[in-house]
Amino acid sequence: MATDITGQLVDFARLTPPSEAREMMRLSLFDWVACAIAGAREVEFANFVAVQKASSTGTAQIVGGGSTSAPAAALINGTLSHALDYDDTHFAHIGHPSVAVVPAVLALADSLPDAIDAATTGVEASILVGVWLGRDHYQVGYHQTATAGAFGATLAAGRLLKLDAKQLRHALGLCASMASGVKAQFGTMAKPLNAGLAARSGIEAALWAQAGMTAAHDGLAGPLGFSATHHGGDHDVTLGWKAPQILSISHKFHACCHGLHATLEALSGVRLSADQVARIDIRTHPRWMSVCNIAEPQTGLAAKFSYAQTASMSVLGHDTRAIKSFSDAITRDADIITLRNRVHVEADERLSETQSEVAISLANGEVQRLRCDLLSPMSLETRAQKLRSKAAALLGADLAAPLWKVTQGDSLPDLLDLLKGRS
Amino acid sequence: MATDITGQLVDFARLTPPSEAREMMRLSLFDWVACAIAGAREVEFANFVAVQKASSTGTAQIVGGGSTSAPAAALINGTLSHALDYDDTHFAHIGHPSVAVVPAVLALADSLPDAIDAATTGVEASILVGVWLGRDHYQVGYHQTATAGAFGATLAAGRLLKLDAKQLRHALGLCASMASGVKAQFGTMAKPLNAGLAARSGIEAALWAQAGMTAAHDGLAGPLGFSATHHGGDHDVTLGWKAPQILSISHKFHACCHGLHATLEALSGVRLSADQVARIDIRTHPRWMSVCNIAEPQTGLAAKFSYAQTASMSVLGHDTRAIKSFSDAITRDADIITLRNRVHVEADERLSETQSEVAISLANGEVQRLRCDLLSPMSLETRAQKLRSKAAALLGADLAAPLWKVTQGDSLPDLLDLLKGRS
Repeated sequence: MATDITGQLVDFARLTPPSEAREMMRLSLFDWVACAIAGAREVEFANFVAVQKASSTGTAQIVGGGSTSAPAAALINGTLSHALDYDDTHFAHIGHPSVAVVPAVLALADSLPDAIDAATTGVEASILVGVWLGRDHYQVGYHQTATAGAFGATLAAGRLLKLDAKQLRHALGLCASMASGVKAQFGTMAKPLNAGLAARSGIEAALWAQAGMTAAHDGLAGPLGFSATHHGGDHDVTLGWKAPQILSISHKFHACCHGLHATLEALSGVRLSADQVARIDIRTHPRWMSVCNIAEPQTGLAAKFSYAQTASMSVLGHDTRAIKSFSDAITRDADIITLRNRVHVEADERLSETQSEVAISLANGEVQRLRCDLLSPMSLETRAQKLRSKAAALLGADLAAPLWKVTQGDSLPDLLDLLKGRS
Repeated sequence: MATDITGQLVDFARLTPPSEAREMMRLSLFDWVACAIAGAREVEFANFVAVQKASSTGTAQIVGGGSTSAPAAALINGTLSHALDYDDTHFAHIGHPSVAVVPAVLALADSLPDAIDAATTGVEASILVGVWLGRDHYQVGYHQTATAGAFGATLAAGRLLKLDAKQLRHALGLCASMASGVKAQFGTMAKPLNAGLAARSGIEAALWAQAGMTAAHDGLAGPLGFSATHHGGDHDVTLGWKAPQILSISHKFHACCHGLHATLEALSGVRLSADQVARIDIRTHPRWMSVCNIAEPQTGLAAKFSYAQTASMSVLGHDTRAIKSFSDAITRDADIITLRNRVHVEADERLSETQSEVAISLANGEVQRLRCDLLSPMSLETRAQKLRSKAAALLGADLAAPLWKVTQGDSLPDLLDLLKGRS
């Protein structure tokens, strides 16, 4: 491996991100906080949080309330913000960038503008490291959210701590011994934990390098380093701001499997009653057929992996943005059952993983043809509007409105105060 | 991969280790404490230790003084005890078992007998997990001390916390997302850090499973799990106590590269002046020729990687067990230079990595032929005697003598008190 990716990352950390990238980061920050507050309400993580609180001490804000050390806060906040799997995604490397980077940033930052710069840098870096590692790294079983994410978190933390180039190189080297997380954890509480561990690794790598710890000169690309051991492909990437990856981040606007989102977006303007619909035909990429095509879900969890169920919910006016919409009861609703039996799903190799085509045959003989590609450009304004609706559905308008305001402002204390999650 | 190695480890954790294995563990514990106290005197790690102390709180003893949380103590103590690279080794998987397992055990145990049982279990498990992962895992660049070590630490910690079978399975699953560490770090402070991280991962995996965190059913051998991602070979291992691996642990009796040890052991009974020696011929395994055959070292560090230097030191009566013997000055000593110029080193493929042959041609025409295999059986009594001499050389007799006594006794408070390292 010839690339000195470590050196490139060190140089990249010094650059000021362009304003468009920072604006996108503010949207992701807003979305991240909403997901984190909602995630902190998941009671099954309460004991895990208590264990960290009992052993760590500091002033870093914990989502949901309380404070602890910066590394422990990053661990907790990274985990809780990914608990619902409702946070942002990037398809270039297939990872969730904000859950690894933002918790590290908020635990260390002194001001919101600095936090935005560092988060933008870290998120962009994590995507590029993920692309550099490549699809083999992901396919063999590594969780890019956690592995690439840890390097992004390290760069963001190092920037906030104002590490010099030598220290930052050591920090990235230290991260090469910590970045980890396997996809075997999907479906368990260890999946969100992977995100928390990545955020903590970033902070610790930066703090330890600041404290004088040394590490491999190029822990990512060097001999016996991260890429050599972790099935990295050493793919070409350019570290810079000419074509920011962060601009093509995807946000989830529906509280269910990402494979359903293109279909639900295509259906977003449709409101019909069950008796108005004769048949719905959905065409999707073949990979999703084994992921989220449960024909007759019996639980709220199963509903999140069902084209028939979620398409029916959307058409009938149930809010697919809200976590609470995915109840066991909704799978037994008479109108839903009537409509979902009229849904037909077919794999179509012409479509990409982010595309869907839907044809609604009405009882009156009309046919509505809809399609969506999640990667189609979306203006920041439209994205903001959709994220605000999502946050309101998740948290209620009373919390979503001030949250929007502080994430677009300059006061870090106000943001951290809202992180406590009172509603 | 068909092996349910996780299930085997869970069952193994319930067994009581045989007394011979526990006796060997007590010797390794004694050696570990000596290395840890000496390592804690390395001032370059002071800031790293201070960072953990500042953010963590608890009553777990830190080597060298002070207390902190159990995970932070394991991190610090694992790192410091491996700082000198003078701790025990197992050649079956090529790792240092005690530095990953013992720090986790001492941070959680309530009694010394329980600590010995848990450490013996964890050390044995780490070696067997390392053998199960195999040589490919090591050769590609993973640091078995850290990777296999983390699983051993998890099992030891889980045993001390009395986790039930389901929790212990989750703990091992959680560890599959944390066990890490690459060999790119060799030669930097991140090498000992890898050991500390492994010890901490073991404690955290066990504590978090106790707190209700779930993870992959078989995070080691299952699909997208640790072995699949980390170049594991799924080699046959039998988890049990029929032929304990711990009995073939090696201890370092010289404060230099392990590749020199067979030669120094062969020379251990020889004391001569420079003018008595006409020539020394050393034969060794070819792999060591590029590792520790510096002909004319100029520094104390380089001296640790030189057959000519260390053989000359040994013959002339310099104590190769003591860290302080490896000074820059010793490389400029006139008698040393005279003698080391008479040393000739040759690779010999007939020899294994643990074997050495030495021929000393005296000025009077006599030739002394010596040989050593580090894997030759050594009685526990002989080993104890050699470890006590080593500890005395490292720490002074005033500390080594009580340390020997407490590690062979039943009082955990007395042991932890000595860990403070006053001399």
